Amino acid sequence: MTAARGRPRDPAVDTAILAAALDLFIEQGISAMSMEQIAKRAGVGKPTLYRRWSTKEALVADAIETLVTADVTWPTRDEIAATPTHQLVKRNIAAAARTAADPRFRALVAQIYGSAVTHPLLMQTYWTHYIQPRRELAVAMLRRAQADGRIAPDADLDVLVDMLAGGVTYRVLQPDPPTARQMKHYLEAAYRQVGLLP
Amino acid sequence: MTAARGRPRDPAVDTAILAAALDLFIEQGISAMSMEQIAKRAGVGKPTLYRRWSTKEALVADAIETLVTADVTWPTRDEIAATPTHQLVKRNIAAAARTAADPRFRALVAQIYGSAVTHPLLMQTYWTHYIQPRRELAVAMLRRAQADGRIAPDADLDVLVDMLAGGVTYRVLQPDPPTARQMKHYLEAAYRQVGLLP
Repeated sequence: MTAARGRPRDPAVDTAILAAALDLFIEQGISAMSMEQIAKRAGVGKPTLYRRWSTKEALVADAIETLVTADVTWPTRDEIAATPTHQLVKRNIAAAARTAADPRFRALVAQIYGSAVTHPLLMQTYWTHYIQPRRELAVAMLRRAQADGRIAPDADLDVLVDMLAGGVTYRVLQPDPPTARQMKHYLEAAYRQVGLLP
Repeated sequence: MTAARGRPRDPAVDTAILAAALDLFIEQGISAMSMEQIAKRAGVGKPTLYRRWSTKEALVADAIETLVTADVTWPTRDEIAATPTHQLVKRNIAAAARTAADPRFRALVAQIYGSAVTHPLLMQTYWTHYIQPRRELAVAMLRRAQADGRIAPDADLDVLVDMLAGGVTYRVLQPDPPTARQMKHYLEAAYRQVGLLP
């Protein structure tokens, strides 16, 4: 065994805590759940939670991210610079469709949006830690497609990101949620619309 | 006075009931509110409510609609057939921006999306009564722009409607909600993107 500085974190404990937080969030939403409930469901003490996460919102933001990125891998800035945009999009489209069509993703989106006004700290935390960095990658991809002449030179790229992300989450929340196959067609149409697929 | 068949409805009572239902929905969401609370806040008896609306969801769907369409007038099918699409869009854009930037609209969207999975009957009722007919008008406008050569012949018009409506509602729920002026620029960019504005 190697000597560790400080207390080494047991990844199995992290996994159990994140899974418990995700389940509780999907079932009850951020306002109704507590650090105590998460600890109980994960089978750990509250101090174990607080050593890792200082707030419920920070923990739930990390838990949300485990589901959102379980299947989907985002390209790095280097890949975006080196690879034609439509290849990057095609590489991810089946996984993105599977994630979006997952009933748990649907319930997750409803809980996130549902708390945006009554409990804004969760949206704020998730936005800063996870959405904002991904938006910057998305804008980098759109800028490259723009440089390649496939997006209008005066297009507002932030609006395009909203139309892509907003369109998908809105479609998912409709009364007839899409299958993974329908979602794949949907994503292809949406990416074509903004110029990320030919 | 003219003789009325049955009991004439007092429009002031309807207005009071709808306002009470809207306030409670924005404050508490559909699951936490009851017909009894609505009646109490509106200052009427529960039978008065039930004579007009058979379910809480039907009443709240009508209440939502009073806010969504307070300022915005949708074109009729005849207007869509007779008028260039970009004129119809321009006519409505300032009012649509004002509505979308209203903090009450933001809270309303959060409550509607937030209940889509845990209490699906509200989304289902509002969708059938109000969203679906408006989507058909939106698709008619897009079809006309498509016939005029401003939207690709193979574009999926339902996906475009989702990208417009989804983009706006997603933008509204973000941590830095837009002003009416910002929302107007946003709508102009979004309409241009899909081909509804030049």
